[in-house]
Amino acid sequence: MPPPVSEQRVVGQRAKRVDAAERVTGRAMYPADLVRPGLMVGRIKRSPHAHARIVSIDATKALALDGVLAVVTGDDFADVPYGATIPMGETGQDMWGMAVGNIARGKALWIGHPVAAVAARDRHIAAAALDLIEVVYEPLPAAVHLEKAMSAGAPRIHEGIPPKGFEGERPPPNAGARTVIARGDAVAALDLAPLKVAFEARIDTAHQGYIEPPAVVAEADASGLITVWASTQGAFTTEMQVAAMLGIPQSKLRVVPMEIGGGFGGKIATHIEPVAARLAQKCGRPVKIVMSREEVLIGTGPASGARVGVEVGAEKDGRITAIRGDYRYDSGGAPGTPTTLIMQANTALYQAHTPALLLEGIDIVTNKAKTEAYRGPGGIQAAFAMEQAMDQVAERLGMCPLALRRRNASVTGSTMPIGTPFPSIGLTAILDRVAAHACWTDPLPKGRFPRGRGLALGYWRGTSMTSAAHVTLSGDGRLMVTMGSVDISGTRTTMAQVAAEEFGIPLDDVFVQMGDTKSAGYSDPAAGSRVGRTMTAAVVEACQDALGQLKRRAAEKLQAPPETVSYANGVFAASATGKASLTLAELMKATLGEGAIIGRGVSSKLPLGVEVGAHIADVEVDTGTGQVTVLRYTAFQDVGRALNPSAVEGQIEGSVVQGLGWALTEGFDYDDAGRLRNASLLDYRMPTALDVPPIECVLIETPVPGVPYGVRGVGEMPIVPPAAAIANAIARATGVRLTHMPMTPERVLAAIRARA
Amino acid sequence: MPPPVSEQRVVGQRAKRVDAAERVTGRAMYPADLVRPGLMVGRIKRSPHAHARIVSIDATKALALDGVLAVVTGDDFADVPYGATIPMGETGQDMWGMAVGNIARGKALWIGHPVAAVAARDRHIAAAALDLIEVVYEPLPAAVHLEKAMSAGAPRIHEGIPPKGFEGERPPPNAGARTVIARGDAVAALDLAPLKVAFEARIDTAHQGYIEPPAVVAEADASGLITVWASTQGAFTTEMQVAAMLGIPQSKLRVVPMEIGGGFGGKIATHIEPVAARLAQKCGRPVKIVMSREEVLIGTGPASGARVGVEVGAEKDGRITAIRGDYRYDSGGAPGTPTTLIMQANTALYQAHTPALLLEGIDIVTNKAKTEAYRGPGGIQAAFAMEQAMDQVAERLGMCPLALRRRNASVTGSTMPIGTPFPSIGLTAILDRVAAHACWTDPLPKGRFPRGRGLALGYWRGTSMTSAAHVTLSGDGRLMVTMGSVDISGTRTTMAQVAAEEFGIPLDDVFVQMGDTKSAGYSDPAAGSRVGRTMTAAVVEACQDALGQLKRRAAEKLQAPPETVSYANGVFAASATGKASLTLAELMKATLGEGAIIGRGVSSKLPLGVEVGAHIADVEVDTGTGQVTVLRYTAFQDVGRALNPSAVEGQIEGSVVQGLGWALTEGFDYDDAGRLRNASLLDYRMPTALDVPPIECVLIETPVPGVPYGVRGVGEMPIVPPAAAIANAIARATGVRLTHMPMTPERVLAAIRARA
Repeated sequence: MPPPVSEQRVVGQRAKRVDAAERVTGRAMYPADLVRPGLMVGRIKRSPHAHARIVSIDATKALALDGVLAVVTGDDFADVPYGATIPMGETGQDMWGMAVGNIARGKALWIGHPVAAVAARDRHIAAAALDLIEVVYEPLPAAVHLEKAMSAGAPRIHEGIPPKGFEGERPPPNAGARTVIARGDAVAALDLAPLKVAFEARIDTAHQGYIEPPAVVAEADASGLITVWASTQGAFTTEMQVAAMLGIPQSKLRVVPMEIGGGFGGKIATHIEPVAARLAQKCGRPVKIVMSREEVLIGTGPASGARVGVEVGAEKDGRITAIRGDYRYDSGGAPGTPTTLIMQANTALYQAHTPALLLEGIDIVTNKAKTEAYRGPGGIQAAFAMEQAMDQVAERLGMCPLALRRRNASVTGSTMPIGTPFPSIGLTAILDRVAAHACWTDPLPKGRFPRGRGLALGYWRGTSMTSAAHVTLSGDGRLMVTMGSVDISGTRTTMAQVAAEEFGIPLDDVFVQMGDTKSAGYSDPAAGSRVGRTMTAAVVEACQDALGQLKRRAAEKLQAPPETVSYANGVFAASATGKASLTLAELMKATLGEGAIIGRGVSSKLPLGVEVGAHIADVEVDTGTGQVTVLRYTAFQDVGRALNPSAVEGQIEGSVVQGLGWALTEGFDYDDAGRLRNASLLDYRMPTALDVPPIECVLIETPVPGVPYGVRGVGEMPIVPPAAAIANAIARATGVRLTHMPMTPERVLAAIRARA
Repeated sequence: MPPPVSEQRVVGQRAKRVDAAERVTGRAMYPADLVRPGLMVGRIKRSPHAHARIVSIDATKALALDGVLAVVTGDDFADVPYGATIPMGETGQDMWGMAVGNIARGKALWIGHPVAAVAARDRHIAAAALDLIEVVYEPLPAAVHLEKAMSAGAPRIHEGIPPKGFEGERPPPNAGARTVIARGDAVAALDLAPLKVAFEARIDTAHQGYIEPPAVVAEADASGLITVWASTQGAFTTEMQVAAMLGIPQSKLRVVPMEIGGGFGGKIATHIEPVAARLAQKCGRPVKIVMSREEVLIGTGPASGARVGVEVGAEKDGRITAIRGDYRYDSGGAPGTPTTLIMQANTALYQAHTPALLLEGIDIVTNKAKTEAYRGPGGIQAAFAMEQAMDQVAERLGMCPLALRRRNASVTGSTMPIGTPFPSIGLTAILDRVAAHACWTDPLPKGRFPRGRGLALGYWRGTSMTSAAHVTLSGDGRLMVTMGSVDISGTRTTMAQVAAEEFGIPLDDVFVQMGDTKSAGYSDPAAGSRVGRTMTAAVVEACQDALGQLKRRAAEKLQAPPETVSYANGVFAASATGKASLTLAELMKATLGEGAIIGRGVSSKLPLGVEVGAHIADVEVDTGTGQVTVLRYTAFQDVGRALNPSAVEGQIEGSVVQGLGWALTEGFDYDDAGRLRNASLLDYRMPTALDVPPIECVLIETPVPGVPYGVRGVGEMPIVPPAAAIANAIARATGVRLTHMPMTPERVLAAIRARA
C-alpha cells in the first residue's frame, strides 16, 4: 500500500521529533512532575539482608505517627507465584516475577528487596515512618555470585520452583531453566577440526542506566477505579501486572503512560506501580512514589551478569565447522533469563557452512535483584565471548577478520541454528560495504600508546507481537492518531510521518498521541525492536480504513460512483464527473454532521525484521594505566527502511554508547554479603559525551517482504557488538585478550602485566 | 439488533450511576480541582458600562507588577465576526457569538462584558493587576430592556449585522432575525371564531443555575499544542471555538472534558476557555480561570427573557381553529435565539384539527449578556402564554381543561406546524393516563388558603446530530467504551448498560469513559435531548462491530465456519462442532497476540424522538403575602424506552424543579443602566429541596421506530409546562391570571389586589 520509495515524501525525511521542544525545555510531563490534589508521598522499606526469613513486621509505631496514612506489606497483595508469566507475545517473558518482587513475602531475597511501604503526608514523615516499621529477620546464608550459587553446597534460594529442561540430568543448585540447541555432532566435529579456539568470558551485572528514575502516581477513585500514571514501556502489561498483584479485574484499572526518560527493557516489569496502587487504595488518596538513584541501582532489575564459554572449530580455509557454547546467566532473585534467544543470536551469522552446534544455556538464581531485559537481552555478553573467539580463529589462520566473517556469513536461506531458513538479510552487503569503507581501509594513525582496530558482528531477532492504533479526523481535515504503544524512541514522530505519507498531507497536520489502557487498543510494550515496525503496520491499516470511509463519503458528495473516486495528497477527485474534486478539509467540514471517521488498525504476527550489523572500532590503550580510549567508531546496519534516518541513527548511537559503557566501565560491584558497593552514578560509571567519539552510522536498506515500508527492527542489535569490537581492538593493539567485562583500566592493566 | 424488551436484562434497570460515589464524596475532578506544575491564576476585567466605546486599554502598570505574567485584550484574538456560526448539527446555533463575546473589541456591550484578562502568580496579584489595567471608555446610551431596545429611537447596538428575514418589511430597531410560520388565513379564522382568547405574557431573563461555576485550565506545551481541561457540554465544539478565537488549527488543540457540575445549555458556548488558552500561550505557563458566582450571573449567557402574545380561536365544541402568536425574544448582546423552534413547539400539540396559524418570531439585541441555550430553549416562556390561553378557552367554554386538550391533541400523522406529518407520539395515551390518575381524580384537600389544580402540556423536538464511540476489550474480556460526548446526565452509566446488554455481560464488566478531542471521534455537544439516544446508537454499532471481529476470531479458535458460531451472554458456541465453546475471557486471553479488538460506532441523522408530556400541579396561594406553595406535582411523559428509569426520572425531576424556579422566583433584575441587581444566589432565588414537593413521574413508553431500543429524548420537554401548570393552578385557586414571570409573591399579591 505505501508508495514506492522514490515517491515517498515524508517517510525517509529527517523529521524533528514532535516532542523535542517539550523535552529540551523541561516541560514534558513525567510521573514525577504530576501533581494531584491531596497527593501523598509513598516510600519503600527495603531488606538489609541478601537472604533472610521475615519473622515479623510490626507497623504499629509507624501508623501512630501523625501524617502517616497507610502501610502495606506482602500480605496486602495477591499471592502471585514467583515465575508466573503473562502472555506477552512470543517471548512469554516473565514479568510477574518482578511484580511479585515488589514486596517480599516470607523471605527477603536480596539487599534492597522491598518488605513494606508507607504513604505519608510528606517525605520527611515517610522517612521517619520507614524507620518505625519493625521487621524481624532471621538471616540465611546467601548465594550472591553466579559461581557460588551454582556450585555444590550453595544455599537454596527458592524451594518451590522446580528447575525446567533438565530431563534426567542433575541440575546445578539454583538453576532456573536449561535450554539446548544441538545440530550434528559438535563434539566430534571439534575433535576433527584442524583449528580449535576456546574462549571463556565473565561479564558483570550492569544496569540499563535510564536517566529517569521510575516514578508513579496512583489514585483510587470513589467508585474503585484506580488510575496509574506510569513511566512504563507498556501501559497494558503494567495494567496486567498491577491487576494480578492487587487481585482486581483489569476493568478496575487504567494505566496512563506519561513521558518516559529511557527504559531499555528495564521499564517493562513493574517495580513501584502495584505498591503505589495498593497504598492509594488503602489510604483513599493519590500516592506518588519516586525512586532515588540509589533505589534505582539496588531496587530495580539490572541486566544479567554471565559466564559464557565458547569453542569454535574451523577448517584451514576459515570455514567454521563446529560451535560449542556454555551460557550461564545470572537471573538474580527469580528465574527467567531467555537463554535460547541469546544462543541463537550468538551463532546466527556464521551459518554459511551449517556448522555442528552444541549450545547449552542455564539461568541461575542468585541473591541479587531479579534481572530484567536490557536492549537485546543477553546479546552483548555472549558476543563478547563469541566475537573474540572468531577473531582468534582469524588470527591463528592468518586471515583478515573481515574475510573470516565474509567466508562464513549467513545469507538469505541459510539454515538458522533452530533449523528454519534465514529470512531476507543483507549481511554480505554490509560486509562488502565495510571492506570498501574508510573506517576499515584507512591506516590507523600513530599515537602515543598502542592502537588497534577491532571488528565485531551483531545479530538480533527482535519480536513482533501486537500493536493497535486508531485514527480520527478533526473538522478541519487534520488527522489524530492514538496508538496503544508508548513512545520511547520517537515513535510519535515516526508515526506522524507514516500517517502523513499515507494521507499525502504535511507532517504538521498530523497529531499523534499515546492512548491509555482504556482508550486505545491492546498493544504490547515498546520493546524487542517491535514498535516502529508493528505500529507502522497498524497506522497504515488505520489510515487506509479511514480513507476508505472518506472515499465513500466523498463519492456521495461528488455524486459519483465510489469506484471512480480517487484520492491523492489531500484531494478527492471523481474521474467520471470531470473536474469535480473536494479537499479533505472541505469534505470534513461539509460532512461533520454525518458522523465521525474512525479508522482502526491492528498489527499482529507481522513478519520478523531481523537486525544485522557490523561495528568497527579504533582504540588506543594507555599501557601505563590500562585506560582505553575509543578513537573512532563506525556502525553498519541493515535497517530495512529508515522511516526517519535521524531517529534510526539515534537508536544506533545510543546503543553503541550503552555498549561502550558496559564494555569499559559499567559493572555492578557486589561484596560477598550481597551489598552493591557502587550504588551511585559517581561509582557506577556510565559514559559521558566526553568518553565517546562521534559515531558514524552507515545505513543499508534491505526491505522486509510483507512489512509496510519494509521496516526492520533497529534498536537492539547495535548494543550487541561494541564490547567485542573494543576487545578485539585492544587485542590488536596490545596482543592481550580481555576475558572479564567491563574492561576497566585495572583489568586491562592487570592483563597487560600478566602477559609481560 | 437489541433484544426484545422482555429479554433485556441490564437495559431498563435502575442502575446506580457509575460516578455516584466519586461525586458525593467530593472526589470527582472538575477543572477547578486540577493542579499543574507552575499553575498561574487567570482573571477577567469586565466592563462597568452597558454600552461604551473602548477608547484605549493600557496594561503597562499591570505588567510592571511583580508576579504578573501576561495580559490579553481583544487585540489578542482572531477577528471572528459577531454572529458567525459553526456547523453544530441541525440547529446551526450561534456559538461563536459568545466566543467573540469573550473579550470586547471596539465596544463593550453589557455590564460584565470582558475587556481584558490577566495571568498572575496568585489571586491577590491577579486582582491587583486588574485594577491597574487602565481602560478609557466613551459611554453610549444603552438599550437594556427588550421593550426599549425594539422601540423607535432606541440606540443601535450592532451596526454591522443586518437583520434577517424581513423581506420588504421594516425591522424594529436591534432586530436579529424574523421567522414566520403561516398556514391558512389565521386573521380571518380568528374573526370567524365563536370564541377568541388573547394572552400577553412577559418573562424575565433567568439563568441556567448550574451549580459549578465555569472553570478551565489551559496549558501550551513547548511544541505549541494547547491542552484545555474544560467543564463543557461539548469538547469538540469547545475546540472549534477556541481554535477560531485563537486563529490556530484544531490540530494544535486538545480539549479534555472533565466532570461537569451542570450545564443545561449554558456550557456549550465558551466563556473563559479561549481567554485561558491565549493567556497560557502568552505566558508559557498553565493558567486556571475559575469564575466567581457573581461572574457567572453577570458574565455567562442566561436564558432569553421574552414578550409573548398569543390569540386562540375555537369552536364552541372546543375545536381550536386558529392560533396567532407574536414571539419577541431577548438575545442579549448578539443575535441568535432560534424562534422558529419555539413557535413550532408552542403549537405542536394542538394540531388535531389543523388550525390556521400565523406565528411571528423576532429576536432582539439588548445591552445585556448574550443569551444562550437553556433546556428546551425558549419553550417555557412561550408555554407560559399558550397554555394559559388554552386554559382560558376551556374556562370560557365551561370545558374541563383536560378534555379541551384531548379534543385537540395531535396524534401520529397530524400535520405539524411546519407542514410535515407528526412522527410517532403518545399524547393521547398520556392524556388518558392523566384522566385516570389520582393526581387528577383526587379531590383537592382543603387548606388555610385558596387552592387550585393546574394542567399544562409540553412538547419539545430535540435534535439528533452526531455521536461517536469506540469499544476495546481488555485481556480479561472486559469492555472499555470511549465516547466522544460528555456525560452530563448519567450517560456513562446508561451506556455501560447498553454495552452490557449488547454483550450480555454484567454491568460491572463495562468501563465507560469520556474521550478527549484527540482520542475520540467527533461528537456534538451533550444538548438538545440527543446524547442518550444517539450515543446508544453509536455504542450498539461499536459493540456489534467488536462482536463481529470476535466471532471471526472465535470461529478460528473453535475451528468452525464463522456462520455456525453464535454468541450469547459472554459465550461463543459453534453449533456445527457440537459442544465446543469459548467464553469472552478465554477468547481474549487466547488471542491477545492476534491484536486488539476495536469496535467503532457512529450515529448521525438518527430519527428524531420527539418529547411529549403533561404536568399536573396543585398549589396553595397565600392571599395575604402572595406566596405560592406547590403541594403536589405529577409529570407524565412518553420516553420511548427508559434505559435507566432512575436517570430518566432524575432528568424529569430536575427539569420540573428548574421550571418551578423560573415560574415562581427566578428572574434577573436589571436596572435601567443595565446593572444586574440580584447577582448572587441570595438575591437570585433558586428553589431548594424545601421549596418543592416530591415529584411523581409517570413514564409512558412508545418506542421510536428505527432507533435502537426506541429511545426518545427526555431531558428538555419537562421544563416546558411547569410555569404554565402553576399559573393555571393559581388561576383556578384565585381567579387571577398572572402575566409576568417569575410569579413572585409581590406580583401574585399585586394581581390579587388589582382584581379586588
